[in-house]
Amino acid sequence: MTDSARWHSAITSIQPNEIRLRGYRIDQLMGGASFADTVYLALRGELPSPGVSKVVNAVLVSSVDHGVTPPSALAARNAASTGAPLNACVASGVLAINRYHGGAVEGAMEFFMREVDRAMASSVNLSDAASQCVARCRSEKVRVPGFGHRIHTDDPRSAKLFEVASETGNFGEHCEFSRHFRASLARELGRDLPINVDGAIAAVLCDLGFTPDVANAFFVISRVVGLVAHSSEERKRERPMRTIDQSRCTYDGPAPCDITNGE
Amino acid sequence: MTDSARWHSAITSIQPNEIRLRGYRIDQLMGGASFADTVYLALRGELPSPGVSKVVNAVLVSSVDHGVTPPSALAARNAASTGAPLNACVASGVLAINRYHGGAVEGAMEFFMREVDRAMASSVNLSDAASQCVARCRSEKVRVPGFGHRIHTDDPRSAKLFEVASETGNFGEHCEFSRHFRASLARELGRDLPINVDGAIAAVLCDLGFTPDVANAFFVISRVVGLVAHSSEERKRERPMRTIDQSRCTYDGPAPCDITNGE
Amino acid sequence: MTDSARWHSAITSIQPNEIRLRGYRIDQLMGGASFADTVYLALRGELPSPGVSKVVNAVLVSSVDHGVTPPSALAARNAASTGAPLNACVASGVLAINRYHGGAVEGAMEFFMREVDRAMASSVNLSDAASQCVARCRSEKVRVPGFGHRIHTDDPRSAKLFEVASETGNFGEHCEFSRHFRASLARELGRDLPINVDGAIAAVLCDLGFTPDVANAFFVISRVVGLVAHSSEERKRERPMRTIDQSRCTYDGPAPCDITNGE
Amino acid sequence: MTDSARWHSAITSIQPNEIRLRGYRIDQLMGGASFADTVYLALRGELPSPGVSKVVNAVLVSSVDHGVTPPSALAARNAASTGAPLNACVASGVLAINRYHGGAVEGAMEFFMREVDRAMASSVNLSDAASQCVARCRSEKVRVPGFGHRIHTDDPRSAKLFEVASETGNFGEHCEFSRHFRASLARELGRDLPINVDGAIAAVLCDLGFTPDVANAFFVISRVVGLVAHSSEERKRERPMRTIDQSRCTYDGPAPCDITNGE
Repeated sequence: MTDSARWHSAITSIQPNEIRLRGYRIDQLMGGASFADTVYLALRGELPSPGVSKVVNAVLVSSVDHGVTPPSALAARNAASTGAPLNACVASGVLAINRYHGGAVEGAMEFFMREVDRAMASSVNLSDAASQCVARCRSEKVRVPGFGHRIHTDDPRSAKLFEVASETGNFGEHCEFSRHFRASLARELGRDLPINVDGAIAAVLCDLGFTPDVANAFFVISRVVGLVAHSSEERKRERPMRTIDQSRCTYDGPAPCDITNGE
Repeated sequence: MTDSARWHSAITSIQPNEIRLRGYRIDQLMGGASFADTVYLALRGELPSPGVSKVVNAVLVSSVDHGVTPPSALAARNAASTGAPLNACVASGVLAINRYHGGAVEGAMEFFMREVDRAMASSVNLSDAASQCVARCRSEKVRVPGFGHRIHTDDPRSAKLFEVASETGNFGEHCEFSRHFRASLARELGRDLPINVDGAIAAVLCDLGFTPDVANAFFVISRVVGLVAHSSEERKRERPMRTIDQSRCTYDGPAPCDITNGE
Repeated sequence: MTDSARWHSAITSIQPNEIRLRGYRIDQLMGGASFADTVYLALRGELPSPGVSKVVNAVLVSSVDHGVTPPSALAARNAASTGAPLNACVASGVLAINRYHGGAVEGAMEFFMREVDRAMASSVNLSDAASQCVARCRSEKVRVPGFGHRIHTDDPRSAKLFEVASETGNFGEHCEFSRHFRASLARELGRDLPINVDGAIAAVLCDLGFTPDVANAFFVISRVVGLVAHSSEERKRERPMRTIDQSRCTYDGPAPCDITNGE
Repeated sequence: MTDSARWHSAITSIQPNEIRLRGYRIDQLMGGASFADTVYLALRGELPSPGVSKVVNAVLVSSVDHGVTPPSALAARNAASTGAPLNACVASGVLAINRYHGGAVEGAMEFFMREVDRAMASSVNLSDAASQCVARCRSEKVRVPGFGHRIHTDDPRSAKLFEVASETGNFGEHCEFSRHFRASLARELGRDLPINVDGAIAAVLCDLGFTPDVANAFFVISRVVGLVAHSSEERKRERPMRTIDQSRCTYDGPAPCDITNGE
């Protein structure tokens, strides 16, 4: 018999009738913490401050769904169409979240961290650092992750995320750098190439002290919600084995509405 | 060229610079709705009332993680140990959420709905219906889903979930039936076989008007958080290709603590 | 520490410098058995006779690929298009092999076994049994799995598979029943509804003594080959994140050719 | 409506009643080509010569299974234990085939190709090139992929694969280099660090003209067979949700035997 090694986990402790996530009783969290706070707790090891809680919540809400065209939604629907159970549809969708879809957050986090570190190390202010970086990227023909979008010329999620970060005192150096970078880029290009939601999430996560290795975690956790909705809708509304042509889909859900209670 | 059919989706509408989930602008949701509310919105098509919001939040928090022994956590760690990227680890974990792990919610929902419907149809009160049901289950040797747990003799998550449901006015007939059923079962067996978290979630979701087909959705959405945490920890703390012996893992995370701000 | 139970596996024994699959040294199999034989050995526990070997080979070759339209091929390409590694593309494709795609073999095996058993039990010859079965299916409006195809009016793989089975003495009762059933069906419907490759594989596997639980095994093992080819081609020939419209694909591979050496 | 682009595939052409893989009618392949040949055809675009056919067959047979300890087998069994359908078990297993498990073939191919190219470019014979390479790897403390095994001190699959390659005239420069490299390594280390099956497959695939991007393809196609066997056995022999302790498994399959008919 092989003698397998002792090992440790810092996530959850299980005792009979007592489950603790990162030290907190899960039944206490069930009434006393939001789902977004619990995500933060699970990934970070501590509960967020009220301000950070709002930012994390906004990040998670921002990426829940983006309609039927993203490859992850198509993958989930394609699997559902063959009769796959819900978990297999979701798994199939998650497998389509990679470098070119959802993966830009990680690259953008690495980019922002590297550039802000460089500016700090050479005592250059972020505005100048951004200008120099734009020039460098252009001369090296590097494609910067997190800017531009195939549909949105000004991604409403990015603006809102920065607003929430700002209001809660979490608009730090990385957000600041991204703002200067966008401005420098616009001056250089002669047109605005706005920051997309991946870029905005990346800047915000950097300022919250996250490292790039959990970048995709937020996108995956958030988008799983949309994958469940698409899998479920495909199963209920469509016949099996249909040809799923994303360009022929029309929205027929609830009419435009606003959150009324101000919450 | 095949003429693929027109089709519809009621989930998300995408216009340049305007993304609406079930009618709501996603940037408005980012500041004005919790992640749990947004999950409810995505699955149900409308925002929850404040009371329902609390129940849904408690359901999602309850199932975030249960340590290293569940097959889904082992699957995620096993994949991580071979060098899989985060999304493949999560997908592998999700593929281990089936009938025998996480799948009890669906069976329990069907059971509670059937029994409560039966009681209604024959105008039997829920207490008597539960007694009759226990007798029937015993004579037919049917194993009822949602009761008993291999570790917890009184699952703290179940009690808390019913408490939240009760406080918010969402403790309806299905929760009531589950309470009577547990009492009848204890009388018959001569010992308490408490309702587990799957059973409690099932009763609560029935009372919220959900149908069994989305039962697993909540578990999957919630547990993905734990799967991310395990995948990430495995990658950071352990060497590749180790033998993962679940019985040799010790918790070494934060010490027991309480939520202090009463939030 | 939990005392986990001893358990057994009858598949492969591993000793230093000696690997035995179902008793055979794998290095001996490497020169002395075909890949198809080894598949049979792994699933069945013994090497096939030369005749059975030919049938199993034909089954495995028959389902290697069916172009870009099957959901499993689309799933693999969709994942590849997002930058997924090869194994994730294949996994995504495999997750799209379900009840409505590739899953007909299992249903058809159950159908053929039940009907042949019924005929045996009541000493009815297979021709009469088939007629009665067609009548019963029509009156009960049961859809019989394994007959008809959305593209092929006479699936060339079915004819060839029966030919190989016949030539090698493996055309047994289940194949025979399927032949009578097709004939009865044609008389009843007034038009031929030919057996498709799933139906033919099902009949042949029944006659080889396989049980329905491994029905999908053959399809999965075989189709993985095509999934690899599609994933690889997508990565090499197409740009990431393109819209994959199956109806706009044209074949541009090798021109029609024949196996020349009569092998 | 988006105008999706025309595209091409060189794998399979589908016409009513005519399916051609890389130009060959699939029903002709069903009788006239082995499954291993068809794998080669699908990946390479042409049928192999008889000699290459034997090598490809040996490669595919070599990796079919390696018992219950590899992460891919554990993943498949873990999923099966939760009640997952066969395809989800296989997908879960495939997701555990990565850099540290099954992935060494790709690294070893890149290594052998680079070193042989370097030797050619500088007109150094392969024996001297291997000596220089060993010295360089040691001074740079580079871990060379494809050598050494946690269980086998002399992997029987490697020896057999080289034997088949040699007998069929396919033992080329890359195999030759690997032989010299092993010898140089033994001289330097003072002990033999034999080439493992991944290394041998890598050398052989290089000599057959494959590029590293399909390296994993062979392992995945081959190992799927074992994953099916493990998933199936787990479902038939074990109770759901058991603790799967790989160190407590004993082989109880067929007794050691030999291929008798000389086939």
